[in-house]
Amino acid sequence: MDWTALVAAKQQECAAKIPPAWRLDPALIAALTAPGVNLLAADVPRTSGLLSSLELEITEQYSAQELLQKLAGGVFTSKDVTLAYCKRAAIAQQLTSCLTETMFEAAQQRAQELDDHLARTGKPVGPLHGLPVSVKDSFLVAGVQATVGYVEFLKRPPETTNSPLIELLLSLGAVIYVKTNIPQTMMTGDSHNNIFGRTLNPHNTSLTAGGSSGGEGSLVAFRGSPLGVGTDVAGSIRIPALCCGVYGFKPTVDRVPYGGQVSEGPEGMPGLKPAAGPLASSFEDLEVFMSSVINAEPWRFDVSAMGGSWSEAPSTSTTTLTIGIPAPDEDFPLHPPVRRSLDEAIAKLEAAGHKIVHLPSPPPESSIAHANRLAFEYFIYAPAPDHITPSGEPPVPSVAAKSSPMFTGPLPVPLEGEPDLSETITKLYALRQAYAEFWRKIWVEYSLDIVLAPGAQSTAVEHDTYGWPPYTLVWNLLDYPACLIPFGKSSKELDPEPFTLTDGVQPSYNPELVDGAPCAVQVIAPRFQDERCLQAAKIVDGVLSL
Amino acid sequence: MDWTALVAAKQQECAAKIPPAWRLDPALIAALTAPGVNLLAADVPRTSGLLSSLELEITEQYSAQELLQKLAGGVFTSKDVTLAYCKRAAIAQQLTSCLTETMFEAAQQRAQELDDHLARTGKPVGPLHGLPVSVKDSFLVAGVQATVGYVEFLKRPPETTNSPLIELLLSLGAVIYVKTNIPQTMMTGDSHNNIFGRTLNPHNTSLTAGGSSGGEGSLVAFRGSPLGVGTDVAGSIRIPALCCGVYGFKPTVDRVPYGGQVSEGPEGMPGLKPAAGPLASSFEDLEVFMSSVINAEPWRFDVSAMGGSWSEAPSTSTTTLTIGIPAPDEDFPLHPPVRRSLDEAIAKLEAAGHKIVHLPSPPPESSIAHANRLAFEYFIYAPAPDHITPSGEPPVPSVAAKSSPMFTGPLPVPLEGEPDLSETITKLYALRQAYAEFWRKIWVEYSLDIVLAPGAQSTAVEHDTYGWPPYTLVWNLLDYPACLIPFGKSSKELDPEPFTLTDGVQPSYNPELVDGAPCAVQVIAPRFQDERCLQAAKIVDGVLSL
Repeated sequence: MDWTALVAAKQQECAAKIPPAWRLDPALIAALTAPGVNLLAADVPRTSGLLSSLELEITEQYSAQELLQKLAGGVFTSKDVTLAYCKRAAIAQQLTSCLTETMFEAAQQRAQELDDHLARTGKPVGPLHGLPVSVKDSFLVAGVQATVGYVEFLKRPPETTNSPLIELLLSLGAVIYVKTNIPQTMMTGDSHNNIFGRTLNPHNTSLTAGGSSGGEGSLVAFRGSPLGVGTDVAGSIRIPALCCGVYGFKPTVDRVPYGGQVSEGPEGMPGLKPAAGPLASSFEDLEVFMSSVINAEPWRFDVSAMGGSWSEAPSTSTTTLTIGIPAPDEDFPLHPPVRRSLDEAIAKLEAAGHKIVHLPSPPPESSIAHANRLAFEYFIYAPAPDHITPSGEPPVPSVAAKSSPMFTGPLPVPLEGEPDLSETITKLYALRQAYAEFWRKIWVEYSLDIVLAPGAQSTAVEHDTYGWPPYTLVWNLLDYPACLIPFGKSSKELDPEPFTLTDGVQPSYNPELVDGAPCAVQVIAPRFQDERCLQAAKIVDGVLSL
Repeated sequence: MDWTALVAAKQQECAAKIPPAWRLDPALIAALTAPGVNLLAADVPRTSGLLSSLELEITEQYSAQELLQKLAGGVFTSKDVTLAYCKRAAIAQQLTSCLTETMFEAAQQRAQELDDHLARTGKPVGPLHGLPVSVKDSFLVAGVQATVGYVEFLKRPPETTNSPLIELLLSLGAVIYVKTNIPQTMMTGDSHNNIFGRTLNPHNTSLTAGGSSGGEGSLVAFRGSPLGVGTDVAGSIRIPALCCGVYGFKPTVDRVPYGGQVSEGPEGMPGLKPAAGPLASSFEDLEVFMSSVINAEPWRFDVSAMGGSWSEAPSTSTTTLTIGIPAPDEDFPLHPPVRRSLDEAIAKLEAAGHKIVHLPSPPPESSIAHANRLAFEYFIYAPAPDHITPSGEPPVPSVAAKSSPMFTGPLPVPLEGEPDLSETITKLYALRQAYAEFWRKIWVEYSLDIVLAPGAQSTAVEHDTYGWPPYTLVWNLLDYPACLIPFGKSSKELDPEPFTLTDGVQPSYNPELVDGAPCAVQVIAPRFQDERCLQAAKIVDGVLSL
């Protein structure tokens, strides 16, 4: 069977699942998905008349935390909240291709059951009672496929089980209503594949929504989801968050259940492990997700989950943070709006009384570039399954580009001449430990509470030009928790000069094209200090919001 | 240089470090180290007159926790406590060969500094202020060697740095005064090597003290240390604890800093990882160690340390535990005294109101034997460095025996014909995950709080006959925390019949020989539930002590 026929059938199936009443005028869709459109300004949920005033209120006026209070208190029914988000997600899908699988009917049925439970018992099912939660396509949800954009995986039947995290979220009362779009291979900054198309950035349709959890970033920015779940092995939660101007948190690996996602082949080779984590419109919703999930004893659901309960810290509103700022990196210079936003954040934090420590430039063997080449080598040292070729589909452009950090230097462990695999593994391990030790000493020497760093060289950039993600990946290599906080905007007035990079991989700054794109900062804490990371990030977010 | 000359020089150096005034009459040593002697009954610390009545009181009347209270309150000086334990350890060493390196002078100087600090500031340095702590030879202590019993390593100079855990313990106020004996390879149940000799069991010199932290077990049982630190990748904390009748706790891997121990070669291949943990005479001292160490933020000391702070739980004295009892295993039948002690423990717990769940026999692919073969394969699938051959020393008998669980069946992943290493790694990983998943389902299905299990088939047995450790290793494969609680004694009156095993690996029961040897039970909790494990073990210990 020709791969295009498989895709056409799937696309038809997906389109048919959007109720006719929720469908937009094809001409409107064509106009709004043209380049350079700000979909948020277009305000289709309101202008289309598809959402009632209550549904607009539900999807626009509250954080997930506030919705949860209203759901638990019976102010809103889950059915109303779920229907509102289903409608809004359906609109988002038609304009941004942010979804893969939709479960609108099943979600409304589930919502009704939750409402009935509350009416019958007077008690919510759990801390996420009645809340619609969107999840990346890689999670298994019984009844729908998990293709992660591979045409080959269209041949697999619908899943019959839920991933452990889905089971856990359901046990807490969540309503799973959509799965969200990703890049082919889940390893690029463009959430684009041959099945579900290309996810657009609602701030500007000319710009990438980021990847690999780009569907989540786009949907949450559109307020089509109050709480999204992504995964991140190189920046896949944080890149969409920064591209789309929402909050994202990559926890320490395996604190949030990651197990039981779509199978891409044998597992267990040493390497970087992905972490599951939340994307949301409000900072507090990251905390809601983390505390709810981790206090539900993840080990009961997922054998790979690690760590104990979520440590609620005493109030830290008066805490003075010691904040380390990494030295600028020559290999990966920041675009002017990113530099300006970071400097402004530092100035605000300093003015608020926090201690800023400008860290010295690292030696070459501990540079950002070295760390990225080491991480890259972990991605490529062992044979990986190819799920593109078997179906005959072509690689999408961002996959074909094969971006890498190799313009900065050689592989840390030479791979020429078929080296012994066990030697390669032990050498990579030693280098990773040494890099972690370099950072451990920095935390101790400077008594740091957090590191504040850019999330990327750029804001969201033109499709298929995102390049390599040095400023998110470095923290995956260290397995440090990292919180992405939207802050500031790209501005052709404030930063009028183009800034051209000639490394052949990373994007240049085009003031006109990215004008208005969200900027962001990243708050990082040491491994397993997830609670500390979010506590500090809350303080930072509070200062930056003033 | 002949290996025996290296050894002779080292032995002379070690012997010379015991002050002449603390040396025992060679004739007494000869008499007491003959087979079948109960060194505890001989009571040499008292009968020799080497310890003052205060020193006898210090070393015999208090738990480490009680000593810490008296040290912090100025009731005892660290100098008095340290001198008392130095003397008693020196006696233990002369009778049991439980030590490798001694630091008696440096320890007393350190104790004086701690006393001065307390006098000057009125405050203890930390929660372990002034307490002598013994550590397994594998930890690096600046100024002495870390040979772990390899003659080849005698060629290495004294260490110039401390292992991270040593640094952490010092920061808490501990006094490091001795390092303790281990088996050649650290992978047998007999703490015996060609440098430091064979550690004897103070309960009965004919019996093994266990391994690999056998020096710790023997020293703690002799009350020559109030708190010992061992490591455990197959039972190396728990086996000496059960052989010597003391408490031992193997935490989840990397909760206690394990990094920076003696280097035996490249690291990083997938496999079972050892955990560092405490041995002590009192249950409460396990808690003192764990809470002190983990609340000191191990990540600041050791880049491989994981997890957050120690969760102090609310009082659980009225808690009713649900206790899973694994089904008897045909491959590894229990010796009569072990069976009797376990049954008695179960009866006491049931009588105290706890819920006992007798778990069904696992299918063959989830049996204890399968788990042990899988763990064994992890130990042997990759090439390991040989540190015995280079010096010319012979393997000791327990190493030469090459005990394994292979009498129970084949390797789970066939290794004939040079299989692809990455395939072997991923197959082993899949089997290990499946075994963990089998156990996860048991915890959930039966709502277990803990599992209560034997620590071994046998008590301490005759030297060089310990065999393979199925009942400790299984929990290493799962990375579950496990607490070893001494309970009961072997008795030729109660269990008069010999019990012969014919598998060619495991020891038979000889009622006469092991009469009076300590018995024990093991309390196990899921991965990362270290706090829960100790909380439940405390309840169990309380019931068993009645």
